[in-house]
Amino acid sequence: MATLNFSTKGVSENPTKFNAQSRTFNIVVDEPEQLGGTNHGANPVEYILAGYAGCLNVVGHLVAKEQHLKLNKLSIEIDGDLNPDRFLGVSDNDRAGFKIIRVKITPDTNASKEQLEKWINEVEKRCPVNDNLQNPTPIQVKLIT
Amino acid sequence: MATLNFSTKGVSENPTKFNAQSRTFNIVVDEPEQLGGTNHGANPVEYILAGYAGCLNVVGHLVAKEQHLKLNKLSIEIDGDLNPDRFLGVSDNDRAGFKIIRVKITPDTNASKEQLEKWINEVEKRCPVNDNLQNPTPIQVKLIT
Repeated sequence: MATLNFSTKGVSENPTKFNAQSRTFNIVVDEPEQLGGTNHGANPVEYILAGYAGCLNVVGHLVAKEQHLKLNKLSIEIDGDLNPDRFLGVSDNDRAGFKIIRVKITPDTNASKEQLEKWINEVEKRCPVNDNLQNPTPIQVKLIT
Repeated sequence: MATLNFSTKGVSENPTKFNAQSRTFNIVVDEPEQLGGTNHGANPVEYILAGYAGCLNVVGHLVAKEQHLKLNKLSIEIDGDLNPDRFLGVSDNDRAGFKIIRVKITPDTNASKEQLEKWINEVEKRCPVNDNLQNPTPIQVKLIT
């Protein structure tokens, strides 16, 4: 398949609230009040985790089909630890983003543990979001003045 | 500040649709019909881009305040190129995720170009999502059987 292009664009509504649009979908990004926000939507890093979970779901079902495993349902929990000090300008001791991300994936299936271990290894290798989080990605930032 | 923990959890509704929840917010992740989905929400990588835009907005306003720049509004467009071949299991020639991500950031402000270049450099350094996309992040995947 040819390379695909995905995009989002939007405008700030206030210093923490951003109204993004991807195709026909509106995505409201905000911060909770404890982080100085207006709490009108999930926060940026929560969207990263939700997109990651959604990606594991898609790839999980695709690979299950290929491997002839019947997946009745897939439950996924993801969490991550982040020290906000660099983001807040308090200290540069820690990195800005998640230091660690933990995924718990619970397939509802009658497949064996061995089959599921083969399955999850393949899912990790082929999940786009897993790749972009685990490995460096080049980013070009253009300031329009 | 102490390290913060962010999370999401959810269940598949069908092979492409995933209903995630972070705090009180529901996030529906799906794929467009062309990618075999039911198109009930933005797709996983669009949420990554939207979360990234929202993150640049928050950090952009925070740093502007510190640097005494008046930001009336911030417009952000982000796009990325992704070859779906590895994800689809067609070929391993390319990586699974975005090969490149491009950000266009347009501040509505009367600050000078020099001030804005200093500003954007600081924003990039302190944006958590920018860090997690540009640099490797450890991920622990636990299969619950």
